[in-house]
Amino acid sequence: MASKTWQEIARAAREHRDRSIAEVKPPLPEIRSEDLPLNVTAIPWKHLSSFEIELTETSPEKLVKSLASGELTSTEVTNAFLRRAGIAQKLTNCITELLPSRALARAAYLDSYLSTHKTPIGPLHGLPISVKEHVGMQGLGQNAGFVSWWDHTAPEDAHLLQLLWNAGCVFYARTTQPQTLMHLETSNNLYGETVNPYNTSLTAGGSSGGEGALLGMRGSCLGVGSDIGGSIRSPAANNGVYGLRPTSGRLPASGFAATMMGQEHVLPVMGPLSTTLEGCKLFMRTIIDQKPWLKEPSLVPVPWQMNDQARFGAKNGKKKLSVGVLWNDGVVKPHPPITRALKEVVETLNTVPDIEIVDWKPYKHDLAWEIIASLYFADGAKEEKEAIAASGEPWRPLSHFIITENQYCKELTVPEVWNLTAQREKYREEYAQLWNETAVDGDPDTVVDVILCPVGPGAAPPLDHARYWGYTAQWNLLDYPALVFPVSTVDQHKDVVEKDYDPMNDQDRWNYELYAPDKYVDAPVSLQLVGRRFDDEKIIEALEFMKETARI
Amino acid sequence: MASKTWQEIARAAREHRDRSIAEVKPPLPEIRSEDLPLNVTAIPWKHLSSFEIELTETSPEKLVKSLASGELTSTEVTNAFLRRAGIAQKLTNCITELLPSRALARAAYLDSYLSTHKTPIGPLHGLPISVKEHVGMQGLGQNAGFVSWWDHTAPEDAHLLQLLWNAGCVFYARTTQPQTLMHLETSNNLYGETVNPYNTSLTAGGSSGGEGALLGMRGSCLGVGSDIGGSIRSPAANNGVYGLRPTSGRLPASGFAATMMGQEHVLPVMGPLSTTLEGCKLFMRTIIDQKPWLKEPSLVPVPWQMNDQARFGAKNGKKKLSVGVLWNDGVVKPHPPITRALKEVVETLNTVPDIEIVDWKPYKHDLAWEIIASLYFADGAKEEKEAIAASGEPWRPLSHFIITENQYCKELTVPEVWNLTAQREKYREEYAQLWNETAVDGDPDTVVDVILCPVGPGAAPPLDHARYWGYTAQWNLLDYPALVFPVSTVDQHKDVVEKDYDPMNDQDRWNYELYAPDKYVDAPVSLQLVGRRFDDEKIIEALEFMKETARI
Repeated sequence: MASKTWQEIARAAREHRDRSIAEVKPPLPEIRSEDLPLNVTAIPWKHLSSFEIELTETSPEKLVKSLASGELTSTEVTNAFLRRAGIAQKLTNCITELLPSRALARAAYLDSYLSTHKTPIGPLHGLPISVKEHVGMQGLGQNAGFVSWWDHTAPEDAHLLQLLWNAGCVFYARTTQPQTLMHLETSNNLYGETVNPYNTSLTAGGSSGGEGALLGMRGSCLGVGSDIGGSIRSPAANNGVYGLRPTSGRLPASGFAATMMGQEHVLPVMGPLSTTLEGCKLFMRTIIDQKPWLKEPSLVPVPWQMNDQARFGAKNGKKKLSVGVLWNDGVVKPHPPITRALKEVVETLNTVPDIEIVDWKPYKHDLAWEIIASLYFADGAKEEKEAIAASGEPWRPLSHFIITENQYCKELTVPEVWNLTAQREKYREEYAQLWNETAVDGDPDTVVDVILCPVGPGAAPPLDHARYWGYTAQWNLLDYPALVFPVSTVDQHKDVVEKDYDPMNDQDRWNYELYAPDKYVDAPVSLQLVGRRFDDEKIIEALEFMKETARI
Repeated sequence: MASKTWQEIARAAREHRDRSIAEVKPPLPEIRSEDLPLNVTAIPWKHLSSFEIELTETSPEKLVKSLASGELTSTEVTNAFLRRAGIAQKLTNCITELLPSRALARAAYLDSYLSTHKTPIGPLHGLPISVKEHVGMQGLGQNAGFVSWWDHTAPEDAHLLQLLWNAGCVFYARTTQPQTLMHLETSNNLYGETVNPYNTSLTAGGSSGGEGALLGMRGSCLGVGSDIGGSIRSPAANNGVYGLRPTSGRLPASGFAATMMGQEHVLPVMGPLSTTLEGCKLFMRTIIDQKPWLKEPSLVPVPWQMNDQARFGAKNGKKKLSVGVLWNDGVVKPHPPITRALKEVVETLNTVPDIEIVDWKPYKHDLAWEIIASLYFADGAKEEKEAIAASGEPWRPLSHFIITENQYCKELTVPEVWNLTAQREKYREEYAQLWNETAVDGDPDTVVDVILCPVGPGAAPPLDHARYWGYTAQWNLLDYPALVFPVSTVDQHKDVVEKDYDPMNDQDRWNYELYAPDKYVDAPVSLQLVGRRFDDEKIIEALEFMKETARI
């Protein structure tokens, strides 16, 4: 590597990517960027067959049924997603490589398996799944956004991928991530920036931004992301798809490449992004049903337990769904489209007798950020600095933001880390107490079930402007499961700038001044449902109940 | 404190303890140490009424029944245990203070409650429970074995104690622990050494050695200990009682005093010691049924689930119990009484068709020790050194052993801790793989259920000689639940020195040379059952099944 400049390595990375896309058959068209609208989500329709469009716009839960019955072949489904992913790359720059030959070989094997055995190999039989690049695939690159890591390869498939594979999936696409993996955007010096398919002047979010953009383009229906501060949820929200950050210890967390391996102060997790809520459920159930804790003993043997009957509602003989609404975290006020969407959802929920809405008051979210931001880089980001310096690549703006400009990024001693960890536990206990105190007359069944809140301080911002992590990192600090779902898009008429707003602080002012509706044309608006630790199933059931009763 | 010498503080501590014991009514006799045999377990019979003897020798499960029915009053049970604990102190030096007035007030309240409501307040109604000193009781001292901490007091009851209290127990005795809490014995400069009731020239074990000796004396039937390297199991084994080190995350772990608060590299846990296996079960169920995770969010919401029907055996329509026997950890060979007891148990188990015995080969237990011993004191034991230096008290021999003489005790940087943590996880995954590989023909139902092994390299050693932690710390590193149960006592005829043994290494030689049967007269011999993470219930059920089928 030493003999190559970072630019040469980046060129090699892009050529490798482009060659992999060029293998897709039939060949994909050239797309001239100067002819494109800001919203490129409809472009694939011009270049794909109607069958390909239909396949790639089918939900994962429906695809697995058709694949299991033999109504569809994995080969045709995989090829359709390969082609749409190739187009998505040309429009949003979300791919690090496609895997056409191995994916189609796998698909052919699965098709043959089904035809021989008359039964699918597993619950994901034949389903194409996209994967964020730093999640290891044996023998393939694993650069985690650093130019100097371009020649790193994974010794084996990540445990999570092994289990998806056992369940019958097809890996066909690997997706982009930012330098350091620690941006809520996706910008690195190997591939450049991943942009938002709804408005290419905006970010796809990050760090699983390649997944977000690919799913937004419907070049994937189910993908693997990772999240230590919002990295599944930001791209899910920005691209109008579903994303789940599970409680740590439920899904395998080994086998990805990143700095700071072995740090446990803030646990990174992997999880699904999907075009449907059912896709996220399918993902979770498929993994957890395989008892991943037997191989990866840091995981907790809690089975996946969705209630067969609804968990909520009088007609099910159950309690009301109690929703705490966090309008504003007390640090940075969300932009008008977010607050408007939240209001609309709450108004609708308020019409449902089986749903109870209460205000959820923010509790020291600034302190939460101070703790987690101190714990993110307890070595003072030494490893990140070295990994960047090793190739001579420039620092991307948001790497600067989260490391150099981050007042909490300091090299700590071991006792300082212990002290911060103790503070983290104290804060977690205080937040737990807030939940406990919502019990009416001491009846624990009456506590708030879920918190409904923004996913960020706005919709997808212009590139290099995702500078506030509080609405997602808050729940990482607490290790709460959090589910992102699409609600709306920015409305040029309704979502006007709030006049005469008096910002609470500098961060709030910065965010306030960032907003103008015309910068955010077509941007998806999403919201987040948050539960207590290990309430992964409950937040999904809550959203299902809200969809069923309030049609949100 | 600065104005007092450590000797003056120690004197004050002993006087405080003695005053608390002097409050017990009727007053306890003077016991002249020069008249005592080495085995003092029978001495209480001379000084207690037959009713007091009967009460204190009743199992906790039977006591709670009689207390709940009103057949016994908490006042009489508590007073009997107070008196026997006071005698135990005079014989083994296991108490830091008795709590006669608050315990009897609590007992009187509970007696009155039962008489008014005709129903017990909770599943431990009226049961006296002893507690290791460093587990906080509001307003009471919490010295953790350091002279300089003598004036520290707990701001509130530890969460675990709150839950025991909710269940109706009576706290009446607080027990000794060693300087630093990091010995497998119990020796400190406030109170001196806690000795073994079966042979007072031997150690009671540690660090929950006060609990061990008190239970061995039947001055308690159920007590609270803590364990980060064997601290529940060593004293349980040395004193012939039961002790359970649960998987971390199942029982509350907050509210105890110790150095290194906030360190998570090796999680300390609290757990029960009891004169019966049922006592340990009662403890676990009582705590976990109260959903401690709602208040302490680091805990995992795994309910306590004992199978109503037996988990093993053809007559229950279940699988065989598969027991892996670890005879020797490959580092230090156990003394003859341990191996003899293990052989006897295995021979008996072999007669049971529903039990299958396989050899469990040790896997790099020396590496396991290297990792855990490095992680114990990642600050180079800075805090321990300061806490000792603050009063000028001398270092106890085993503090020297585990800190100064411990080649792995070094001040580490944060990245070094991450690296060791990653090594720990790798080792855990490799050990998990060993379990998985015991599956016959890939059937996961056939894997080894439990490992049966020594608790230490010998029975309770002479004072200041507990220098090998491997047989217990191994399972802390792996975070496996481990249950200690009494099996035998050292037999002067059977347990002869093994001639011509060629030690494997210096540690092994040291341990080999330590043994002579006449040093270990009457010492209890115990064994340990170990399960995979979260198999707490399973190891208890396995021991129950072994007891039922093989009468061990």
